[in-house]
Amino acid sequence: MSSEAEDAKYLLDLLDRPNEPIFLPKGDNGVIFGVPEDYLEDRFKDSEITNRFSTSTSAPVVLKKLPSLPDLDLPLRLPKHAIFSLFIPYHRRMAAKLIEIFLGLRSLKDYLSVASFCRENMNPQLFNYAMSVAIIHRPDTRHLTVPPLSDFFPEKYIDAAVLKRAREEAEFGNRGVETLPLEINLDYTGSDLEPEHRVAYFREDLGINLHHWHWHLVYPFNGPRNVIDKDRRGELFYYMHQQMLARFNIERLSNKLERTKRLLEFREPIQEGYFPKLDTLTGSRNWAARAPNTVLRDINRPGEQLVFDIQDLERWRTRLYEAAQTGRVIDSNGQIIQLNETDGINILGNLLEASDLTVNRNLYGDLHNLGHIAIGLCHDPDHRHLETFSVMGDLATTMRDPVFYRWHELINDIFLEHKSTLPRYTIAQLDFSGVRVTGIEINSAGSGPNVFSTYWQKSDANLARGLDFSPRSNVFARFTHLQHVPFNYTITINNNGQPKQGTVRIFLAPEIDERGLPFLFEDQRKLMIELDKFPVDLQPNQNTIRRNSSESSLTIPFEATFRDLNQVPNTQPGIAEFNFCGCGWPQHMLIPKGTPEGYRAVLFVMVTNLQEDLVQDQGNVDSNCRKATSFCGLRDSKYPDRKPMGFPFDRIPRVGADTLEEFLTPNMNIQKATIRFYDVIAPPGSVFIPGQGIQSTGQQGQGQQRVQGQQRVQGQQRGQGQQRVRN
Amino acid sequence: MSSEAEDAKYLLDLLDRPNEPIFLPKGDNGVIFGVPEDYLEDRFKDSEITNRFSTSTSAPVVLKKLPSLPDLDLPLRLPKHAIFSLFIPYHRRMAAKLIEIFLGLRSLKDYLSVASFCRENMNPQLFNYAMSVAIIHRPDTRHLTVPPLSDFFPEKYIDAAVLKRAREEAEFGNRGVETLPLEINLDYTGSDLEPEHRVAYFREDLGINLHHWHWHLVYPFNGPRNVIDKDRRGELFYYMHQQMLARFNIERLSNKLERTKRLLEFREPIQEGYFPKLDTLTGSRNWAARAPNTVLRDINRPGEQLVFDIQDLERWRTRLYEAAQTGRVIDSNGQIIQLNETDGINILGNLLEASDLTVNRNLYGDLHNLGHIAIGLCHDPDHRHLETFSVMGDLATTMRDPVFYRWHELINDIFLEHKSTLPRYTIAQLDFSGVRVTGIEINSAGSGPNVFSTYWQKSDANLARGLDFSPRSNVFARFTHLQHVPFNYTITINNNGQPKQGTVRIFLAPEIDERGLPFLFEDQRKLMIELDKFPVDLQPNQNTIRRNSSESSLTIPFEATFRDLNQVPNTQPGIAEFNFCGCGWPQHMLIPKGTPEGYRAVLFVMVTNLQEDLVQDQGNVDSNCRKATSFCGLRDSKYPDRKPMGFPFDRIPRVGADTLEEFLTPNMNIQKATIRFYDVIAPPGSVFIPGQGIQSTGQQGQGQQRVQGQQRVQGQQRGQGQQRVRN
Repeated sequence: MSSEAEDAKYLLDLLDRPNEPIFLPKGDNGVIFGVPEDYLEDRFKDSEITNRFSTSTSAPVVLKKLPSLPDLDLPLRLPKHAIFSLFIPYHRRMAAKLIEIFLGLRSLKDYLSVASFCRENMNPQLFNYAMSVAIIHRPDTRHLTVPPLSDFFPEKYIDAAVLKRAREEAEFGNRGVETLPLEINLDYTGSDLEPEHRVAYFREDLGINLHHWHWHLVYPFNGPRNVIDKDRRGELFYYMHQQMLARFNIERLSNKLERTKRLLEFREPIQEGYFPKLDTLTGSRNWAARAPNTVLRDINRPGEQLVFDIQDLERWRTRLYEAAQTGRVIDSNGQIIQLNETDGINILGNLLEASDLTVNRNLYGDLHNLGHIAIGLCHDPDHRHLETFSVMGDLATTMRDPVFYRWHELINDIFLEHKSTLPRYTIAQLDFSGVRVTGIEINSAGSGPNVFSTYWQKSDANLARGLDFSPRSNVFARFTHLQHVPFNYTITINNNGQPKQGTVRIFLAPEIDERGLPFLFEDQRKLMIELDKFPVDLQPNQNTIRRNSSESSLTIPFEATFRDLNQVPNTQPGIAEFNFCGCGWPQHMLIPKGTPEGYRAVLFVMVTNLQEDLVQDQGNVDSNCRKATSFCGLRDSKYPDRKPMGFPFDRIPRVGADTLEEFLTPNMNIQKATIRFYDVIAPPGSVFIPGQGIQSTGQQGQGQQRVQGQQRVQGQQRGQGQQRVRN
Repeated sequence: MSSEAEDAKYLLDLLDRPNEPIFLPKGDNGVIFGVPEDYLEDRFKDSEITNRFSTSTSAPVVLKKLPSLPDLDLPLRLPKHAIFSLFIPYHRRMAAKLIEIFLGLRSLKDYLSVASFCRENMNPQLFNYAMSVAIIHRPDTRHLTVPPLSDFFPEKYIDAAVLKRAREEAEFGNRGVETLPLEINLDYTGSDLEPEHRVAYFREDLGINLHHWHWHLVYPFNGPRNVIDKDRRGELFYYMHQQMLARFNIERLSNKLERTKRLLEFREPIQEGYFPKLDTLTGSRNWAARAPNTVLRDINRPGEQLVFDIQDLERWRTRLYEAAQTGRVIDSNGQIIQLNETDGINILGNLLEASDLTVNRNLYGDLHNLGHIAIGLCHDPDHRHLETFSVMGDLATTMRDPVFYRWHELINDIFLEHKSTLPRYTIAQLDFSGVRVTGIEINSAGSGPNVFSTYWQKSDANLARGLDFSPRSNVFARFTHLQHVPFNYTITINNNGQPKQGTVRIFLAPEIDERGLPFLFEDQRKLMIELDKFPVDLQPNQNTIRRNSSESSLTIPFEATFRDLNQVPNTQPGIAEFNFCGCGWPQHMLIPKGTPEGYRAVLFVMVTNLQEDLVQDQGNVDSNCRKATSFCGLRDSKYPDRKPMGFPFDRIPRVGADTLEEFLTPNMNIQKATIRFYDVIAPPGSVFIPGQGIQSTGQQGQGQQRVQGQQRVQGQQRGQGQQRVRN
């Protein structure tokens, strides 16, 4: 490895075990950093200090001592044990400053040196965030894969009870005692007495929460202009969240819950309580719970520079609705900006979020972010109880809370108001002349045609990087999450003309509403979830397109969520080259849960003209990165689809199109489908196939490497289908 | 040491580090237990297991393998990671069974063996409680000092943030890095925006909470009859809690808060919120917070066998008031029991608490205990959120919560209703013929006569026994708590007759109420707090009695709360013999805080006839035990004062005694006094003296043994008075 490449990797080692002093071995290979003594706390200024903690015989990596450090005053103001939140404007300014510094350092050696100082002297959450954004955006580090946040801050993702036991297991493992993977029950935060708990498997899914965190790393809402001002970022903010809401609503319908209600009235008690059962190890505080029926109150917490009223939120809400409904925004110079078909949604997105790209913060405020804060602090709005925010205040955890969806339904509603002012798509705009979708079918092992099969799966994640101060033995958390049987699309397309290129767009929607009645198209279109989008070459006449579910443009592979890549031996060909970007919907959550009796859904396929979709300036696309472009765009490039995001369902349908069938043009087609849920749990390293039961994949679950006892038990149950365990 | 004495000490070692497996070294000397393999989890059944964890070269203590274990089925039903509460009847039954088993084992070797099995396989909190009660009550172990619960479960007493840092410090200490004592801010649970926070120093005091826990160890409310049926236990339940309330109310008055209001209406929102900032390491769950204005709801949690309605509490409340006001209780056979002067309060106490001595549980229910539960579970009454109780549900933590005092004011009110039905004390009953108290004066260093001086003091407690799995290096938590300058009473008594013996009773009360008006005696008597009670020999004519505040019959010495006795070298003469029982009010909380301008109080002294006070059957009094008899009675003996507890203030005063002055008989006297609070903080190993500042005592704070840096800083500030630090 070149020195430069090594330095880059050391940056990742600096993220490891964030609460330990830097002189303890770091990273999976136990790197010892030789940090300039000036960077250390007084009591650690002792040249012997690293020797006392080192278990390695390799020489320390001596870091450069800079003649002077950059001005770190602002980010150093956040106490080390405080909780950091990007929703807090003061914290955001600190992060922006730190990102700017990291991006501005000329060499990797300088960056390493400054980073080592920051790691030792700064709040670990702030440090991790700024480092992650900088690594993703620096030309000399963008090839690195930033490990998921759950590696370093497992407390944001994992039941506190399990984490405590993990520390015990690490001690056992270190002394050669067999360690057990630690089961995280699906039902650890609530019971079915609480209706909202029925969809906890979605809200608390590791992959979904990692996706949300990573999305905001890729699309920071403040910082240096070149980092935030990405192509169509405001629109993507709208679309990604709209799709998450649609997905959540289909999960709700699958579980006999009504769709989420907007949090429109800020003075009414919030019915939904949430008890996250998470710790904040860095902040050394529990994540606060929200009791049912809590009322929002004015926020007055000068320590965090957070002072605003519920009336502020109400005024911003009123103005944003007015902007969306009139199609006119007033910028900070008093000039009127029209929210037109091309840029309107993007301007509105930046205004609503609000990102630093907002055209008028004074008038339209900071509705989305401060709403998160108002809800996240409703248990202690004036800081009298010295409490920090609840999970709603942290991007890494906010999707766990039922109220997240209620809040975003409000934000989404304002976007919908804007979209409803835009011209409806005409048949000419929708059609792709001469191209007809003639057939759609999906197939998967053990299921009839057009049946999606879902079930529970257990997967292991290694906690070793986040168990600060514990011996570095592998300890696995065993998650139970939704899974589906992989499937293939077979789409037949008739091309009545010359060879051409098209974009295939695949969506899924529910067929019937809460009352058991068929959806009106006006409602159904809002529940259309994107499954895939890809280009095709169309030969004249009949074309048969085959595509596997794992190729989805939405998702990142299962391994990105659960597999610990560093554990995969390099000798396995192919695996070493396997790389991915962390942003993307988790593959295992591609298909909603459905119901045991079969949930009625409709598959929608449309082919559009690739020439009209293509974006000219594609920049330098990073070929190493397995792309999940639909939600995440392309790194350093324009969003790779010129159509409005959510097309063709983002606008009110043309007059007369009252049902999905009536909406179809020849280049679209639909297929009724069923989502059948099997209440079985497949152990790690196995899959479930309807009619055949649980089948080994030949790969071991990670936690099983030392867990013979556990494996035997599972072996006995193989093929019979374990019943879901609730305890 | 004899083999028997050693075995007894090993029992205490079994309490050490309750969440570790038994085969890790235990106790301050690192005892290795050789436990029968059958007692261990399967994966630990390996004869090498102890070697892997042992750091000691001494031989393991091999424990006897019993041919068969007693029937432990009931206590084994509580999951290891559940939270245990004596307020839950189901848990109480488990504890009673386990205590009975421990008390019934014939030899210490058998007890050790069974205890080792229980430690390894049972819930650690249940185990600790049953062991503590058994050790206190077994003849062959009663000489042992049960270490305070805070040693083993520091998470019930110490800010979770500090505990987390303590683990880090233990790692540093273990590697020879200077460790820092961990400051626990006085203001870590709230700010002065919350009026109730002004008295947090009382509610959250380590000594007060340890006292309350220890009191309930000495007076369990169920278990084997010989353990619960102690002399006047129901009355002591009344008196000890009444005195704590009076003390709390004087602290409130000192802080310009009104007296606590009874929680009389169970349907009204509980205004006071409480955010304890504690973890439950064993239960691996946060202690739930209670948001302000939470409403009590019916409890329906079958998993804990807890199903009762708020209506149940209301019915019991109504019946108990009726019993108190009519002076008649109906027992379970339908017979009427009169609540008379001698036994009435005791019967009512057992009925109200309720202990197993209640005469009719069906009719009078379990008001006090289930009230604790209803409040402790109001955030999740039907277990839908899988939450455990808040601090109100644990005897070790309940006094931290403002609502504890509101609840006990209700209980106390029912006792007062009973007391108001009793005949008023006549002058003849109150007087001690020929004995006159002619003068009262208190004096202390640096203060004028009759001035109490209070200030803040820092003290250290060693956390090493409670940091399970961490290296066993000393880590100190540094508490800031109230303290007073020690003082002497000088009481002059004229004995107009033969030599005789008397009992001196000293009380303190506030002089003016919330409105600044002098108290009516009827109110003032309820705020009389006992300071001391002791026998005197009275010679004819003038007697001058001198007594030091540290001799109080109420308190246990400061060292019982903060000093780690095992750290005191045995070579120091006198110290090795120093012993105490753990039950008693903490010495440092003897005198209420008062105010900087001087809080107006009145000292009351009364001498009664010892011959009338003396209890005949005193049993075998344990002379090793430094007694705090006023709140705790005497171990294995009758309560050593025949007068009703709280005498002479426990009843409505005679007609005409509308002021304290009017109430006085010649054997009583009063002295106006002032409590002056100095807002300085004396570091560990120092005291504050008004006019002289902070003075070293020559003893080091425990945390200072390795903390030179810290000590230097404090040395510079000595004598100047540190300002109270809020951060």
